[in-house]
Amino acid sequence: MVKRNESETSEVELVRRIRRWASPAPAASLVLGIGDDCAIYRPRGSREDLLFTTDLLIEDVHFRRATHRAEDVGWKCLARGLSDIAAMGGAPRFCLVSLTVPGWADTRWVNGFYRGLLRLAQRTGTALAGGDLARTDKVTCDIVVCGAVPRGRALRRDGARAGDAIYVSGRLGGSAMGLAQGSGAAWKRHLRPEPRLALGRFIREELRATAAMDLSDGLSLDLRRMCEASGLRAEIVIPPICLGGNLDQGLHGGEDYELLFTVPSRVRVPRAFEGLPLTRIGTMFRGKAEVELYGRPLEALGWDHFAMS
Amino acid sequence: MVKRNESETSEVELVRRIRRWASPAPAASLVLGIGDDCAIYRPRGSREDLLFTTDLLIEDVHFRRATHRAEDVGWKCLARGLSDIAAMGGAPRFCLVSLTVPGWADTRWVNGFYRGLLRLAQRTGTALAGGDLARTDKVTCDIVVCGAVPRGRALRRDGARAGDAIYVSGRLGGSAMGLAQGSGAAWKRHLRPEPRLALGRFIREELRATAAMDLSDGLSLDLRRMCEASGLRAEIVIPPICLGGNLDQGLHGGEDYELLFTVPSRVRVPRAFEGLPLTRIGTMFRGKAEVELYGRPLEALGWDHFAMS
Repeated sequence: MVKRNESETSEVELVRRIRRWASPAPAASLVLGIGDDCAIYRPRGSREDLLFTTDLLIEDVHFRRATHRAEDVGWKCLARGLSDIAAMGGAPRFCLVSLTVPGWADTRWVNGFYRGLLRLAQRTGTALAGGDLARTDKVTCDIVVCGAVPRGRALRRDGARAGDAIYVSGRLGGSAMGLAQGSGAAWKRHLRPEPRLALGRFIREELRATAAMDLSDGLSLDLRRMCEASGLRAEIVIPPICLGGNLDQGLHGGEDYELLFTVPSRVRVPRAFEGLPLTRIGTMFRGKAEVELYGRPLEALGWDHFAMS
Repeated sequence: MVKRNESETSEVELVRRIRRWASPAPAASLVLGIGDDCAIYRPRGSREDLLFTTDLLIEDVHFRRATHRAEDVGWKCLARGLSDIAAMGGAPRFCLVSLTVPGWADTRWVNGFYRGLLRLAQRTGTALAGGDLARTDKVTCDIVVCGAVPRGRALRRDGARAGDAIYVSGRLGGSAMGLAQGSGAAWKRHLRPEPRLALGRFIREELRATAAMDLSDGLSLDLRRMCEASGLRAEIVIPPICLGGNLDQGLHGGEDYELLFTVPSRVRVPRAFEGLPLTRIGTMFRGKAEVELYGRPLEALGWDHFAMS
């Protein structure tokens, strides 16, 4: 869903403020706190770091009752969290699901929700470890997914270096186009995004990616976030756009759940991974944290959930 | 908040169903899944087990805008999760907070919410590791708290044995009484519950408790849950009730966040821990999983959030 928002007290601002409040410094075992796709926790004496991500999926914000079946909502709820795990190169371990449902959502709807969620969970080896349930006016699902990476190996968005090549997987804008059309292959893609878990591990293990994140809010906004985290400027060309999609959808459309990553320029990146195209779209440079498309600043118009009044 | 509900498709039923769906068996590293206060995860090679709990706090279900300040809501949101960690004898590590707010909740409200939450977080050594934010019609907070215990040492509700003595901490019914009164010390207790973290570690380390859980939904319902998990029958007397409270509040009132635990009958339990009374209220026996008060079955009338239509 593409929404335009340039409010100053946007999600970025609020996250910044909360991060400031959350200091003094978190526990030593918390390697990375607020601001990346996942928090990173290092269990005592363990060979693996644990990744944690949390995502809200809300009726009439992220989906509509009339157009999204219960199974689709359950699937998407988990897929969004898994995508964050993929972005850090992790393997999923378990999830916790909190669900609130209004009166219209009967047992059948709740069953469908869990059926969709568990189908993806079983396919990806994610255990359902717990959750909470309550009644409210709208369907609200909050999911926490835990993943694991070998100690110290998580891909972060702050690791890009000047000179690194910028890549994206797949073709962008498909989800936004699907949402606009409301049917067909692109719509199905919007309903059932595929978290790029295998790709995430591949770019971490084989390509030695320096930074990565998933494209959940649109390239223009997400790449700017990577620039801000890494303290770099990105110069890009037009990214690969899905068949039938337009430039606007490709640059700003959210919910593609493809991966955005950087690798040192000397690294040979294959043209595709398991049939999914990997395309170089630009280069990182020293400079002010912003994105330039053919030398002109690209406004970050992606999806920004939060704009406090 | 004391609510009466005897619907057959209650939370217990739904949890049972979801647990069934969640099989085939979860990952080996997930020691305990759905059904206890926390899920237990065993990181590879680690000396500690990690505990995870998730809790929803919803406007007009768990609190009201008119009577609960933002700081109180933030505090309570974390306190509920910490209470689950306490029940397993754990030490808190970090939390993840997802918050949805309606139009009336301005920046000041959100600030207040985080101020209340972070005050308790800092006092208990809980890092705020991340979260999500969105707009919706009602305030909904979903919190995940992670705690840790030495490997294999978590207190569970399924560990009670026939002959064990049953104990509760504190005096019960205070929160229900506070809610009914809307002011005074009991009301403050309702607003700002104190998770019994130090007590949880004490009963695990010093008393070698066999089972424990926190009293969130009322003694009658929570003790029945412990009976069901342990496959035992409980015989109890009237528990200690808060000053001014009635029997109904003491037996069925929710949100006291005291600890309910069992110890082998030979264990000498002190009368108080750090000023908090520890009172023996009964004994566990072999038999059908139910609670008897002076030999008569005690109906489980505690707070049951979920009753599917």
